[in-house]
Amino acid sequence: MVVAPSTSVESLCINSIRFLAIDAINKSNSGHPGLPMGCAPMSFALWDKVLKHNPKNPKWFNRDRFVLSAGHGCMLLYALLHLSGYDSVSLEDIKQFRQWGSRTPGHPETFETAGVEVTTGPLGQGISSAVGLAIAEAHLAAKFNKPGLNLVDHYTYVLMGDGCNQEGVASEAASLAGHLGLGKLIALYDDNHITIDGNTNVSFTEDVLKRYEAYGWHVQHVADGNTDVAGIQRAIEAAKAVTDKPSLIKVTTTIGYGSPNKANTAGVHGAALGAEEAELTRKALDWSYGPFEVPQESYDHWRQAINRGGAAEAEWNTLLANYRSQYPAEAAQFERQLRGELPQGWDANLPSYSADDKGLATRQHSYNCLNAIGPSLPELIGGSADLTHSNLTDIKGEGGFQKGAEANRYLHFGVREHAMAAILNGLAYHGSGLVPYGGTFAVFAGYMVGGMRLSALSELGVIYVLTHDSIGLGEDGPTHQPIETLASLRSIPNLLVMRPGDGNETSGAYQVAVSNRHRPTALILSRQAMANQANSTAAAVAKGGYILEDSNGAPDLILIGTGTELELCTKAAAQLRADGKNVRVVSMPCVELFEEQDAAYRDSVLPAACRKRLVVEASSSFGWHKYTGFDGDSVSIDRFGASAPGPVCLEQFGFTVDNVVAKAKALG
Amino acid sequence: MVVAPSTSVESLCINSIRFLAIDAINKSNSGHPGLPMGCAPMSFALWDKVLKHNPKNPKWFNRDRFVLSAGHGCMLLYALLHLSGYDSVSLEDIKQFRQWGSRTPGHPETFETAGVEVTTGPLGQGISSAVGLAIAEAHLAAKFNKPGLNLVDHYTYVLMGDGCNQEGVASEAASLAGHLGLGKLIALYDDNHITIDGNTNVSFTEDVLKRYEAYGWHVQHVADGNTDVAGIQRAIEAAKAVTDKPSLIKVTTTIGYGSPNKANTAGVHGAALGAEEAELTRKALDWSYGPFEVPQESYDHWRQAINRGGAAEAEWNTLLANYRSQYPAEAAQFERQLRGELPQGWDANLPSYSADDKGLATRQHSYNCLNAIGPSLPELIGGSADLTHSNLTDIKGEGGFQKGAEANRYLHFGVREHAMAAILNGLAYHGSGLVPYGGTFAVFAGYMVGGMRLSALSELGVIYVLTHDSIGLGEDGPTHQPIETLASLRSIPNLLVMRPGDGNETSGAYQVAVSNRHRPTALILSRQAMANQANSTAAAVAKGGYILEDSNGAPDLILIGTGTELELCTKAAAQLRADGKNVRVVSMPCVELFEEQDAAYRDSVLPAACRKRLVVEASSSFGWHKYTGFDGDSVSIDRFGASAPGPVCLEQFGFTVDNVVAKAKALG
Repeated sequence: MVVAPSTSVESLCINSIRFLAIDAINKSNSGHPGLPMGCAPMSFALWDKVLKHNPKNPKWFNRDRFVLSAGHGCMLLYALLHLSGYDSVSLEDIKQFRQWGSRTPGHPETFETAGVEVTTGPLGQGISSAVGLAIAEAHLAAKFNKPGLNLVDHYTYVLMGDGCNQEGVASEAASLAGHLGLGKLIALYDDNHITIDGNTNVSFTEDVLKRYEAYGWHVQHVADGNTDVAGIQRAIEAAKAVTDKPSLIKVTTTIGYGSPNKANTAGVHGAALGAEEAELTRKALDWSYGPFEVPQESYDHWRQAINRGGAAEAEWNTLLANYRSQYPAEAAQFERQLRGELPQGWDANLPSYSADDKGLATRQHSYNCLNAIGPSLPELIGGSADLTHSNLTDIKGEGGFQKGAEANRYLHFGVREHAMAAILNGLAYHGSGLVPYGGTFAVFAGYMVGGMRLSALSELGVIYVLTHDSIGLGEDGPTHQPIETLASLRSIPNLLVMRPGDGNETSGAYQVAVSNRHRPTALILSRQAMANQANSTAAAVAKGGYILEDSNGAPDLILIGTGTELELCTKAAAQLRADGKNVRVVSMPCVELFEEQDAAYRDSVLPAACRKRLVVEASSSFGWHKYTGFDGDSVSIDRFGASAPGPVCLEQFGFTVDNVVAKAKALG
Repeated sequence: MVVAPSTSVESLCINSIRFLAIDAINKSNSGHPGLPMGCAPMSFALWDKVLKHNPKNPKWFNRDRFVLSAGHGCMLLYALLHLSGYDSVSLEDIKQFRQWGSRTPGHPETFETAGVEVTTGPLGQGISSAVGLAIAEAHLAAKFNKPGLNLVDHYTYVLMGDGCNQEGVASEAASLAGHLGLGKLIALYDDNHITIDGNTNVSFTEDVLKRYEAYGWHVQHVADGNTDVAGIQRAIEAAKAVTDKPSLIKVTTTIGYGSPNKANTAGVHGAALGAEEAELTRKALDWSYGPFEVPQESYDHWRQAINRGGAAEAEWNTLLANYRSQYPAEAAQFERQLRGELPQGWDANLPSYSADDKGLATRQHSYNCLNAIGPSLPELIGGSADLTHSNLTDIKGEGGFQKGAEANRYLHFGVREHAMAAILNGLAYHGSGLVPYGGTFAVFAGYMVGGMRLSALSELGVIYVLTHDSIGLGEDGPTHQPIETLASLRSIPNLLVMRPGDGNETSGAYQVAVSNRHRPTALILSRQAMANQANSTAAAVAKGGYILEDSNGAPDLILIGTGTELELCTKAAAQLRADGKNVRVVSMPCVELFEEQDAAYRDSVLPAACRKRLVVEASSSFGWHKYTGFDGDSVSIDRFGASAPGPVCLEQFGFTVDNVVAKAKALG
């Protein structure tokens, strides 16, 4: 099965990948050697002959993006980065594969290793975020490029496996990519017929190429991915020549290629070869070098990438300088975005309200915010998973991003929540200052939390616009009414969950969300209207929680409200005051930000001495005991909802002033 | 566009559907008329001419299953049930559409309305659960049917729209259905070109039939779904004739057919027509009847279903009687399953352990449990989303359910977590006593929580086997390490989240999970080993939390542990006792069950007087303050993990005996 290895430099280069992977995984006794061994030829073809990148400046803007969607094969990527001369992955780093504090973790993470474009591992996320990268490129190219000055001009390459192709998120994203005709998206599909359960014939026998063709992709097949480097290169070039469709190149390979006893088995997918089999593989591939030994000839060849990359970047810098002189305004915007700076005064038009202003739903306030900042924040780009007129995510006058209309910044994601999250991540991963947002019903966060988790882990400033946030949505009933959604989102580290309680707080939530370019935000917004509060401010939202209405001196009782229930709290407080209670109302639009305030501030809002606390939120009580302890209580809902008009649901489940007053009084 | 209506009884029957939908939605001023109006002809063709069902016994086992995957069109289903003579949907029920306490909620729910086979609304779930229904049918048929005695013999029909076809979960399920060759699964695809954002050409232009063909489905197209009832019927019959592939029939329709001003627009998707447009639609369709008025001729025709259904059931009852006499043992098993009874002694072989027994990972204990109950619980059926040898979900000697081997009960779901959840739901929805289970890594609950939520809402006894439950999994790193997963699952109503702490508790967890046939369970299991506890018992698990090691009289301090951290608690307790602390160790494998115990029991375990409590769980602290209050603490992890060997991760993040002791002492 193993073709007699040539001693040519190409074989050396390819086998250098394989043995770095084998040796690192053997040393850590943990990892996935099968993919690096099988995909070494195709990745060599791509990285050595096609990929435009500068190892000495991994963040060079106009580089091609390479996404290892099959993230478990990360030793492939670390080997490529090391061999190509990236400083982020030294030989020592490779020896520390999967060890505490290393730059070579068990799956590739953007925040650990320069040169990793997308955090992968959870299957399907890489290809889906790559669709976002390709959208970003197409959008910026359409917006900034000028005749003869292609300031934005790069490809997005993906390496994906059978696993990625089985995941629904990838199907959603691929369908949208085909619709949008993203011609600069090129995916290599490692068709090795093996997944963890064994041969793909136990569960995956569809015709993948035909499916992608149905999506509108250009498809090709390289039958011998083990040795036909030239064929792979030709296929990539052919894919580049098709400019109006994304491309999928199925490359048939042997997983664990070169291992006499483990190649083409599930056993080589996720376990070290072991010393003995590594030795046998060395013999089979005629590899006379020791562990972690890379022949100089291989380094010499691979590291031509440094000069090539430097030259490419220099050329682009010249182009940028020309661009700057001819189009100073556009260049200024472009370079500002690349610096990650928001435009001066981007938030100047965010609305503010007084208590006399008509109460609106926070989704309506959100719409007003998006439309207030849209014109002054050109990097704002987003849309909805087919709920535009429910989420109110459109910006007046803004057209849809479509094939041939890529400068438009409204994204119709279709009914594809999970892909939406991954694509929003991709827009952020692109590193070009785009401010991505996307809407769906709050309950359908459950369809995309796999992607939202990666927004949080990878520190991406994605804004999720989640409307219809409680049983208050009414008639659509329990399948559509969030109960656990807020709790489940609040439990994700590094995600800001903001549930504003009126117009001012919604403006404040947008200020926080847009300003946080390295942290995702979930805006939790109502279907139904609520009053504007007399004492709310946008600025207070940044503290997460604040005193909306204070008691006269130390409070007997604190009501803590969020979102639509803030109004219930102030109304109940008025009754309680009339009954002689010394009550404080705390608005808590963002628990996470409140927890980041210093102890003195937190205690000033929620003094330890006052243990009579009542949380009011039309959502699960789960998680609120941190603020109510054993002695407080909540007006909340810990069962699924019901189909009925919203006001009826709220009343039936106890979200009334009377019930809040009664529960408050019951605290003593 | 509207074809001149015939006065034939078929037209009356079809328009009866349309106007019940129009009138109910107008009355409630909320709902989705477009689908019922457009799909009335295809649903008439199916229900009147093909569907085998008995309106007077909605639970008759051998009925065809009809799944309205496009659940928002529920007035179609309510109209069909009412017109066909189901007692569950009276005309009065239809008038109460979407009102508090009605049997006609805003999306179809199995637990509200007899005749609803699958709870739908969240798009893609219906078609995916239908794959589970078809698997159930194929499995039981292969297992029970005898020559000339097809005891199990029904079709599963689905009506799905563009939305379902965009959802990744449906793509996953359809790919698997094609692989498995589920010939008795037939889906009608309402191709109306409209979604909420407008024409599908804004986001969805793929070739759906070609895609399904790539999955291995038989595909057909009926070009005129508005009037060609005979063509639709022919297509369904042709689909039935193809026995080795599932079938998709694309039926091109006009959404809101008959409405002069709203047909073929997104406006008719999700909003009432209004009185005026309803009147115009009456004129256009030549409908001379008042609101909620159904002509007797229509009822007379529709309700022939009652006699047909009664006769079909009687015939099957005769067959069952024959079967019973010829195959008494098989019949006894079959009828026992249909009664929802577990076999006597199904759990007799569940293992028990003493502290001297070797400590194992709970995933290994789970494997031992599955293999202990597998032989005595023939209705146990399940598998893994391509992690069989990591989740340890296989049963020794059990073959894979495959095309031509449908009697086998191991399911290779492929890397398709979300479809797995929906398919497991389908196995439960089938109502044939199957006990479905499915495994993946715990962190990938985030990929399928949309389906898990429906297990909980629809009261389905699905068992989720979620392994690799903490940073203790080690090298795979933060993308694979659950942090928020337990909290997010615990926040879902009606879901039991069980994290057993040793072998006995794992046996107890299986006893609870299998016994709960109307409540899903998530088993949270470790990759790594832990000791068996001296005082643990399987029986105690049913109480959710119990005293594992008691203090001498009232405790000064309570350590509360779960899963792998239970061992940390007992070791720390030993040190604390040596230091003179009067410490109790509480094991809390299932918070939900503990909360269902009476107050006296709960107080006996966690006395209100003892506020020095320390929770130890390698997971987010979110939600635990309910038990620790303001005065307790936790050893937990509220940030993402890291890639390193499991023991290193645990130590670095403070999961050591020393740290537990120190934190306990810090409580005073």
